[in-house]
Amino acid sequence: MTDTLQYLSDSARVDNAAIQPLPQSRKIYVQGSRPDLRVGMREITVSDTPTELGGEKNPPVTVYDTSGPYTDPEAVIDLRKGLRPLREAWIDERGDTELLTGYTSAFTRRRLQDPLLDPLRFTDERKPRRARPGCNVSQMHYARKGVITPEMEYVAIRENMKLQEARAEGQHPGQSFGAALPAEITPEFVREEIARGRAIIPNNINHPESEPMIIGRNFLVKINGNIGNSAVSSSIEEEVEKLTWGIRWGSDTVMDLSTGKNIHETREWIIRNSPVPIGTVPIYQALEKVGGVAEDLTWEIFRDTLIEQAEQGVDYFTIHAGVRLHHVPLTAERVTGIVSRGGSIMAKWCLAHHTESFLYTHFEDICDIMKAYDVAFSLGDGLRPGSIADANDAAQFGELETLGELTKIAWQHDVQVMIEGPGHVPMQMIKENMDKQLACCDEAPFYTLGPLTTDIAPGYDHITSGIGAAMIGWYGCAMLCYVTPKEHLGLPNKDDVKTGIITYKIAAHAADLAKGHPGAQIRDNALSKARFEFRWEDQFNLGLDPDTARAYHDETLPKDSAKVAHFCSMCGPKFCSMQISQEVRDYARAGMEQKSQEFRAAGSKLYDKI
Amino acid sequence: MTDTLQYLSDSARVDNAAIQPLPQSRKIYVQGSRPDLRVGMREITVSDTPTELGGEKNPPVTVYDTSGPYTDPEAVIDLRKGLRPLREAWIDERGDTELLTGYTSAFTRRRLQDPLLDPLRFTDERKPRRARPGCNVSQMHYARKGVITPEMEYVAIRENMKLQEARAEGQHPGQSFGAALPAEITPEFVREEIARGRAIIPNNINHPESEPMIIGRNFLVKINGNIGNSAVSSSIEEEVEKLTWGIRWGSDTVMDLSTGKNIHETREWIIRNSPVPIGTVPIYQALEKVGGVAEDLTWEIFRDTLIEQAEQGVDYFTIHAGVRLHHVPLTAERVTGIVSRGGSIMAKWCLAHHTESFLYTHFEDICDIMKAYDVAFSLGDGLRPGSIADANDAAQFGELETLGELTKIAWQHDVQVMIEGPGHVPMQMIKENMDKQLACCDEAPFYTLGPLTTDIAPGYDHITSGIGAAMIGWYGCAMLCYVTPKEHLGLPNKDDVKTGIITYKIAAHAADLAKGHPGAQIRDNALSKARFEFRWEDQFNLGLDPDTARAYHDETLPKDSAKVAHFCSMCGPKFCSMQISQEVRDYARAGMEQKSQEFRAAGSKLYDKI
Repeated sequence: MTDTLQYLSDSARVDNAAIQPLPQSRKIYVQGSRPDLRVGMREITVSDTPTELGGEKNPPVTVYDTSGPYTDPEAVIDLRKGLRPLREAWIDERGDTELLTGYTSAFTRRRLQDPLLDPLRFTDERKPRRARPGCNVSQMHYARKGVITPEMEYVAIRENMKLQEARAEGQHPGQSFGAALPAEITPEFVREEIARGRAIIPNNINHPESEPMIIGRNFLVKINGNIGNSAVSSSIEEEVEKLTWGIRWGSDTVMDLSTGKNIHETREWIIRNSPVPIGTVPIYQALEKVGGVAEDLTWEIFRDTLIEQAEQGVDYFTIHAGVRLHHVPLTAERVTGIVSRGGSIMAKWCLAHHTESFLYTHFEDICDIMKAYDVAFSLGDGLRPGSIADANDAAQFGELETLGELTKIAWQHDVQVMIEGPGHVPMQMIKENMDKQLACCDEAPFYTLGPLTTDIAPGYDHITSGIGAAMIGWYGCAMLCYVTPKEHLGLPNKDDVKTGIITYKIAAHAADLAKGHPGAQIRDNALSKARFEFRWEDQFNLGLDPDTARAYHDETLPKDSAKVAHFCSMCGPKFCSMQISQEVRDYARAGMEQKSQEFRAAGSKLYDKI
Repeated sequence: MTDTLQYLSDSARVDNAAIQPLPQSRKIYVQGSRPDLRVGMREITVSDTPTELGGEKNPPVTVYDTSGPYTDPEAVIDLRKGLRPLREAWIDERGDTELLTGYTSAFTRRRLQDPLLDPLRFTDERKPRRARPGCNVSQMHYARKGVITPEMEYVAIRENMKLQEARAEGQHPGQSFGAALPAEITPEFVREEIARGRAIIPNNINHPESEPMIIGRNFLVKINGNIGNSAVSSSIEEEVEKLTWGIRWGSDTVMDLSTGKNIHETREWIIRNSPVPIGTVPIYQALEKVGGVAEDLTWEIFRDTLIEQAEQGVDYFTIHAGVRLHHVPLTAERVTGIVSRGGSIMAKWCLAHHTESFLYTHFEDICDIMKAYDVAFSLGDGLRPGSIADANDAAQFGELETLGELTKIAWQHDVQVMIEGPGHVPMQMIKENMDKQLACCDEAPFYTLGPLTTDIAPGYDHITSGIGAAMIGWYGCAMLCYVTPKEHLGLPNKDDVKTGIITYKIAAHAADLAKGHPGAQIRDNALSKARFEFRWEDQFNLGLDPDTARAYHDETLPKDSAKVAHFCSMCGPKFCSMQISQEVRDYARAGMEQKSQEFRAAGSKLYDKI
């Protein structure tokens, strides 16, 4: 442990692998309506079409960028100081918050006074911020008052991805199942969606380092990556590395699911260095505070934990307030009982005390905390199915109905809400989940874990769940929580995090294409054109993971000359369908169409009897 | 090259990795109606439920087994001699075939006379077999005459997977989109489906080593793995290893797509040692014979190639007879033109000669060859889309309509047919492919490559396509052609083959579950029960890839004791949702249901205003 402590306080260094620019990519900023509103994107430069194929100029492709300042060569990043608080002025000038002189949470104050934790502590001097008495600082509150915040304008620019400048190209009509995808995202549209409860911007006023992003069915489908140490394994240093690694590959939000020691300090390092919203499950830490004995949990301990985390800057809380006493017996005959950690803690608490969950009875008290910091609810699905057998059962749907009830209460407080969903669900039962969630929760954003479409492939659950994730994203799910290859087996390492993220970027993008999200097909078209024109480097660089694509190519054809070759390893130089196809195109354009029409007109059908 | 030649003729040895029994698995045989009809399956033994959780006896789980004698410890396998010809007596006793004194193909005879090839040659003394003049030896022909062949009985037993003996367990109702899945597969049902053209048994009379399997929408969804060397890379030895490796993990058929040197000899080694049907694309070899110049192809060269391969025992031929002259100009404005190798060859030939494809004009001549050996058609989709942009376009669907026309001609000859499909298709356009194929081709089995649901992830196209494969399998596709991580980038190695196979087993099984295939959920239920009861070894062994699951678990918790521990690495010993859930179950069973009902009856709703 000493080594880790030393490292963190004296020489915490950003992971070198997280700050390398991606090949042929550069950070660009789109200027908003005020000087301090600049939205980062990634621009991928591509080559022109080779002269012999027409010599066309190919425009750069702009892609959504979750990596924040880590991929900006101008940015100076010092993990010990944290990222620049880009939203601080926006929050400050609203005049509805105040800087506190100290932390409200008793637990936080105790931790700060413990000299043994000094080497471990993030050492900044920031003061926590809270709503002034009687104020509500949630984005939903502003939206409902008709105010377009800089955060809303930021996400409008971000979601548009310079689409209006991109070359108009063919895209297939989508099937959006009732989503309303505008051709251009305006700040006013963002405001309306947030006011309506159909989208959220999870941005705690104590996380001013975060770049605003939006979660809702009428926006790009988002993904979440989980990190977090456990009692068994991993250190703070590793967790910060997983954060910067995860956002490099596209994690839109990150959940810190730590359950081990020092989770308060771990979280502080993560938040201060995260440009994406951070979510947590506060009950995990509350349970640590009572020595792991669920029955000993109290509302007071939980409340202090919420405030502790809210003043650190957690952007959304998973709260399992939908697990009610009368739901618990519904799980008794399940194949896999209750698999959600939060759900099982609350179930145990309810049974031990034989009374209703304090999360449910204190739900309005929780809302009061949420709106004082703008923490969004992620209403947890504590009774989600842990196996195909348990999918869509009475326990799961009973809880979902309660979540719908709680959504409406949160909305009465102008608190932002999303709803967590399963889990393990076979394909034919996925749509029912989405439809029921939209109906019960009045279109509050859905946020699902997969779902896994079969149980029989431990070691490959990124794939069993990537299938379900793509489908539910298509049906209307707003954010997909990743699953790594280690799911059910162990804790993900950096490679697993990357595999999980890329798999889920695939699922989310496949969903955007299927919904017909405007401009979603630009990147597919650009990559396929590069592929057809044997622009190998462009094919790699336009992909979600240029490094792996290049490495796989080099395994078969390592020479640099092979990357400009007009053939590939599958067929070799003499025999290449792409090359033949180019010839067909030239041939066809040179008048074949007319000849073919003549042929057809002359009666080309040979098997007339059919 | 010398080393390889030496290896093959003198000391060809079966890959040791392919013959290790899978953990806790044993080969079992289900006896059919005659002594020589024994259907191999894999039985996975599992532990009983721990005493403290009830001590229940858990029955073994029987799973479909494609690995043939390689996983039978009783079998003596010598690659130089090939596998035992288990179907020889069945074919022989039908009395409608004759053994030829020599090979019919002029090319084969020339190869046999070339002493330079001696070291490379498979050295058995077998004689080719052909239908007697006027006879038709296709399974479809027998089926239509009302004959139930041993092959049909074999697949009936195989598809049932001892379901009638398995514990009746809960399974969700499926959505089969019009498929007719009987509760039990009878030999007569198999016969009817084959007679109707809705299923095929690809079993060339010259491949008596093959274990009969069936491809059709009313049976388990199958997968195909591709192997094959190219001009650039890989040897015969590697290809045979990929075969035995691929069937170990579940490849139902294997296509040999070799395009390099010595493809005749490579194929002989593969077929003689394959217990699964082998498919090829004969135009690849025909093109080799004319030095790679598509225009120089002739019907005579192609015909000789068909006969050459049919007498070796190829079970199905991909034939791109649907690429017609008038379709070719329809591809000119595509983003990625023609990406099928066979399709581009035929397109080039059509344009160069400005005449209809010889595959189309000689289609009935091809049927005559197919029925003399019982080779099944896999009507190639030479104009399949190579990018999202080109999905479902006029070229693709124009060809599909022609394939429907050709299906009916083949059926007039009682020749078995399946139809190849795309390719690259976004999710919302997949079902149209399936529906159109069913309509155009009158429910002939569909066999698709993926489809890939986005183009933006080179290096991960097993996943982009696994999503589409699962969906189209659900919609009714009968066989899914795998895609490996190297797709578009390079040639797959053994690891890639395994990754591709496992991904596609996931897709096929997810589709079986979604269709509601009887008994499909037994394995999911058994694995999830093991997971819930912390039977770690059972969880690994019931999975598609026990080795990877075990290795991932050991990365975090390597000790043997951890495999019997009642916790896992995600939460650690103190904090475990599964363990808590067990307690909840005990608690709930001890009368909580009644208490909870009392509570509910007393009015438990706290937020009455909602």
